Amino acid sequence: MDSDYGVPRELSEVQKKRALYQPELPPCLQGTTVRVEYGGAAIAADPAGAHVISHAFPHTYGQPLAHFLRKTAVVPEAKVISEHSAVRVGIVFCGRQSPGGHNVVWGLYEAIKAHNQNSKLIGFLGGSDGLLAQKTLEITDEVLASYKNQGGYDMLGRTKDQIRTTEQVNGAMASCQALKLDALVIIGGVTSNTDAAQLAETFAEAKCATKVVGVPVTLNGDLKNQFVETTVGFDTICKVNSQLISNVCTDALSAEKYYYFIRLMGRKASHVALECTLQSHPNMVILGEEVAASKLTIFDITKQICDAVQARAEKDKNHGVILIPEGLVESIPELYALLQEIHGLHGKGVSVENISSQLSPWASALFEFLPPFIRKQLLLHPESDDSAQLSQIETEKLLAQLVETEMNRRLKEGTYKGKKFNAICHFFGYQARGALPSKFDCDYAYASCWFQVLGHVCYHIIAAGLNGYMATVTNLKSPVNKWRCGAAPISSMMTVKRWSRGPSATQIGKPAVHMASVDLKGKAYEQLRLNSSSFLLEDIYRNPGPLQFEGPGADSKPISLCVEDQDYMGRIKKLQEYLEQVKTIVKPGCSQDVLKAALCAMSSVTDTLNIMVSSSTGQTPL
Amino acid sequence: MDSDYGVPRELSEVQKKRALYQPELPPCLQGTTVRVEYGGAAIAADPAGAHVISHAFPHTYGQPLAHFLRKTAVVPEAKVISEHSAVRVGIVFCGRQSPGGHNVVWGLYEAIKAHNQNSKLIGFLGGSDGLLAQKTLEITDEVLASYKNQGGYDMLGRTKDQIRTTEQVNGAMASCQALKLDALVIIGGVTSNTDAAQLAETFAEAKCATKVVGVPVTLNGDLKNQFVETTVGFDTICKVNSQLISNVCTDALSAEKYYYFIRLMGRKASHVALECTLQSHPNMVILGEEVAASKLTIFDITKQICDAVQARAEKDKNHGVILIPEGLVESIPELYALLQEIHGLHGKGVSVENISSQLSPWASALFEFLPPFIRKQLLLHPESDDSAQLSQIETEKLLAQLVETEMNRRLKEGTYKGKKFNAICHFFGYQARGALPSKFDCDYAYASCWFQVLGHVCYHIIAAGLNGYMATVTNLKSPVNKWRCGAAPISSMMTVKRWSRGPSATQIGKPAVHMASVDLKGKAYEQLRLNSSSFLLEDIYRNPGPLQFEGPGADSKPISLCVEDQDYMGRIKKLQEYLEQVKTIVKPGCSQDVLKAALCAMSSVTDTLNIMVSSSTGQTPL
Repeated sequence: MDSDYGVPRELSEVQKKRALYQPELPPCLQGTTVRVEYGGAAIAADPAGAHVISHAFPHTYGQPLAHFLRKTAVVPEAKVISEHSAVRVGIVFCGRQSPGGHNVVWGLYEAIKAHNQNSKLIGFLGGSDGLLAQKTLEITDEVLASYKNQGGYDMLGRTKDQIRTTEQVNGAMASCQALKLDALVIIGGVTSNTDAAQLAETFAEAKCATKVVGVPVTLNGDLKNQFVETTVGFDTICKVNSQLISNVCTDALSAEKYYYFIRLMGRKASHVALECTLQSHPNMVILGEEVAASKLTIFDITKQICDAVQARAEKDKNHGVILIPEGLVESIPELYALLQEIHGLHGKGVSVENISSQLSPWASALFEFLPPFIRKQLLLHPESDDSAQLSQIETEKLLAQLVETEMNRRLKEGTYKGKKFNAICHFFGYQARGALPSKFDCDYAYASCWFQVLGHVCYHIIAAGLNGYMATVTNLKSPVNKWRCGAAPISSMMTVKRWSRGPSATQIGKPAVHMASVDLKGKAYEQLRLNSSSFLLEDIYRNPGPLQFEGPGADSKPISLCVEDQDYMGRIKKLQEYLEQVKTIVKPGCSQDVLKAALCAMSSVTDTLNIMVSSSTGQTPL
Repeated sequence: MDSDYGVPRELSEVQKKRALYQPELPPCLQGTTVRVEYGGAAIAADPAGAHVISHAFPHTYGQPLAHFLRKTAVVPEAKVISEHSAVRVGIVFCGRQSPGGHNVVWGLYEAIKAHNQNSKLIGFLGGSDGLLAQKTLEITDEVLASYKNQGGYDMLGRTKDQIRTTEQVNGAMASCQALKLDALVIIGGVTSNTDAAQLAETFAEAKCATKVVGVPVTLNGDLKNQFVETTVGFDTICKVNSQLISNVCTDALSAEKYYYFIRLMGRKASHVALECTLQSHPNMVILGEEVAASKLTIFDITKQICDAVQARAEKDKNHGVILIPEGLVESIPELYALLQEIHGLHGKGVSVENISSQLSPWASALFEFLPPFIRKQLLLHPESDDSAQLSQIETEKLLAQLVETEMNRRLKEGTYKGKKFNAICHFFGYQARGALPSKFDCDYAYASCWFQVLGHVCYHIIAAGLNGYMATVTNLKSPVNKWRCGAAPISSMMTVKRWSRGPSATQIGKPAVHMASVDLKGKAYEQLRLNSSSFLLEDIYRNPGPLQFEGPGADSKPISLCVEDQDYMGRIKKLQEYLEQVKTIVKPGCSQDVLKAALCAMSSVTDTLNIMVSSSTGQTPL
């Protein structure tokens, strides 16, 4: 037997109840007729990178945005697709497992079957490896039965996270052609969606008939841009982690003798740490983005934590909870530089045993200063995206140890008069990643629940014949019936890095969907700043409780999503409507005064916008 | 400010809903009249220790069992207490925090106020330290408001776990006298309840008017005997941990490349590990009791895991989940012996740096063989109960490392042909300990929810003037209206250890409530044995889901509780009824034949029982 993928699972009572849940569809996805309205050609947000991107993606850059319309919408230009020939669609899990992945499959299956019973959905077994090896499982009602609304990726499995080398891309194309796929749906995060865009371009170039579609599924929440408000899985991960963080806060407050250092899975960006902080109010969080912006060294951070411990001790508080994103280690300048040197030596084929002796003098000094356990972890091979193995590097233990040493010093010196500092370290990630998806993560699909919306959106994209697009659902903080479903070219989400440190210079100049950092000017971060001193000193811990599927809390959404002023896609549509109105009002034959007023107003608008665009990119206004 | 104990907390939506929950009372606790029926004098289960216990507890051993009766029960001998003078009751958290502790306080408060509005409940702040220092907080509706049905011990806090030395006992007595307490309620596990019994005896000896009552609250589930079916907190801990274990199982199955080694908090006994295994079906669990019974060395255990990994690899399974109770390290004979040597040297005042050089040759050889991280952890000072600091010793990492070394050896040798062995280690405990209490843990109180039953029971014990008793609720696997509420003398739950290894010989010959091990002849363990090979090879992982408060799963109870054939208290009552019936039927004046039949039958019964009792204790039948 090759694997257990797709076998029926025994479900618990809670799982059975969840499996029965049949979510509602947003109006634009109801019925069997697809109505697509195309917007303007989508451009990359950073104009400076646009020409590089358009050069790299000649077939798939500059395609229009697509909006799916509800039955009742009156949009004369909309393309109406009501004939649905049978399609063959392949689907593959590409990134790390994230709650909700199964529902993308389920949603897509329901959608293609609803439109034509002869359509087939083919799952690739074992992720990208299965795609290349053509290991497939046809998705059926029987296969889906015990995976609906369930966590994990165990229905199809996954292996490594990339389809990038020429060999891999050609292998994927060969599979798509051999299986006569009309479309290939790739479920994943930033790297997988970059790969999806590249595949789409290569397929178009090679006149391969398979269209490629990406779906933003990643627990990290770092695939975030003007078109994508959040990713599938982020809400569940934050809720499960927040529950555990809150339990630890309660524990800290009960015993009043421990400092808990909790590292959170979430890759380089600190979205998970920020959201969990807003949900559970721990005493401190050290966001990688803050550290990078202020160029804090490991000693600065240690001192800051020690000062906090001391300030709390002065209020007779000898306990606390401190959150650390797993990506922090790469945000600390000197540790990042050390990692880059190590990775460079890895790249040159230097064996692990010999790396430390070949470091530059300053890197060697830092390396020798660090405790043995972290040295061993820093020496690990980098990941396929050139980042360090963040899940394996125990930054929380390093910080706890440094803080302990410093607090003992202060205690001896008499400057610190609190109790002996005691730390307990945790890493939360694996225990949340396989969780049952939350209602919102569900709501981020199939109307008020489940990931079918994205599945349905994928289907609609395929029906419209689009290639290199990502399924998007926006206006998520509003109720389901106000959600907007559409698609945006993945290439318009790309940016081009103009610099990069260390040996991973391969990324320089190459367009890619890059992970979004926490926006230090954003509203979610503002919430943190406003509250951080009361979080620090007042122990206003908050316990959102275990993930609920019924009753209060079951319908909550990520705080960072709700406070942000999003709905980019909605605004783009609104702008189009204004422009259409101007055209309608100012038709040839209108009065001279109306025309003059229109010219005057539009001239002012375009001037203002030109100035804004140029000031944000440093270019001379047009 | 001294601390944040008892301050109002900000509650989340889920917490608010829980705070509103008003549980129902079992029939025997309803109304303001207390009906107590006394059973026979309770004896210790082990007759051999009985005389030692009775000698150590002359005032409190041999007291009768107490059963609280419902209004409608017709029991002429029952003591009916309907006059309730105002009482002053103190309450203190003594053991480690466990979900549900707050509800014992709430329940007790509601009960004493319902019986007399002038009664007062006084909480000691900061656990036993607060008891000795007379730091108190009067419990009021306002204080309770944000702690009802919530996790943690942060309303009153706790410090160390003992009231044992003469100084501590006298301090506690001084506090009780100064505060004019009619009763002192101690919330905790085996050690705290042993302390409670000792306090009760000392108070009785000294004619101190304060009665002492214990409540079995501990997440470990190891306070278990003929009178106590399970402890408050055990269900919640197992549910929260099982959720996380299941998520990790799903994760393992999704990526198919990791072995997860998960250590579970729960002290020396393996109840938590067994229950979590029955709930989530991981591939393996290594119970300390099994290891001790089979005298497995660390190498035996490593080999067993390696063989399992190999057997799984032959079925193309390169992932798995293995549970390890934190007490395992003390069940492995050679590690336990090493720990005893280390603790002995600690006892002699040898400093940590010098211990390794003073070990016996064999212990030194073992010590040097172990990886540095575990050496450091084994050298930690023992806990107050002479056990190792189980939460700090990463046995899961030790095993993972030993298994990895062995699997690499087998791979090189060619006897193992699977993928490279990869382990990820976890310790689950702190993140569950502060959780919101489950419905069952709630049901273990105040009828179908909350810990008030125990609170109420405490109150009833106090009203009956009993001293040195533990509140008991039995027949827990049945619906609430069939629960039996009563009280049993703590001394009758004691046993006397006739041997003890290493320097902790102070416990020899001293009666104490000892922790109950997993019963390897019990039904819960039988469930594990029946399923262990399918758990190992078939990946029949089961996800009970996050702790629910509504809908399916919300009313589930621990599997190990439900499969056991308990209700000892019910059977004791039933037997009394039979004896009464015989007395009633065979009154003077009955026919000769009836008398002869009775004599013949009773002679046979007593003979049978004598043989059974003597065979279980090795004594000559009477």
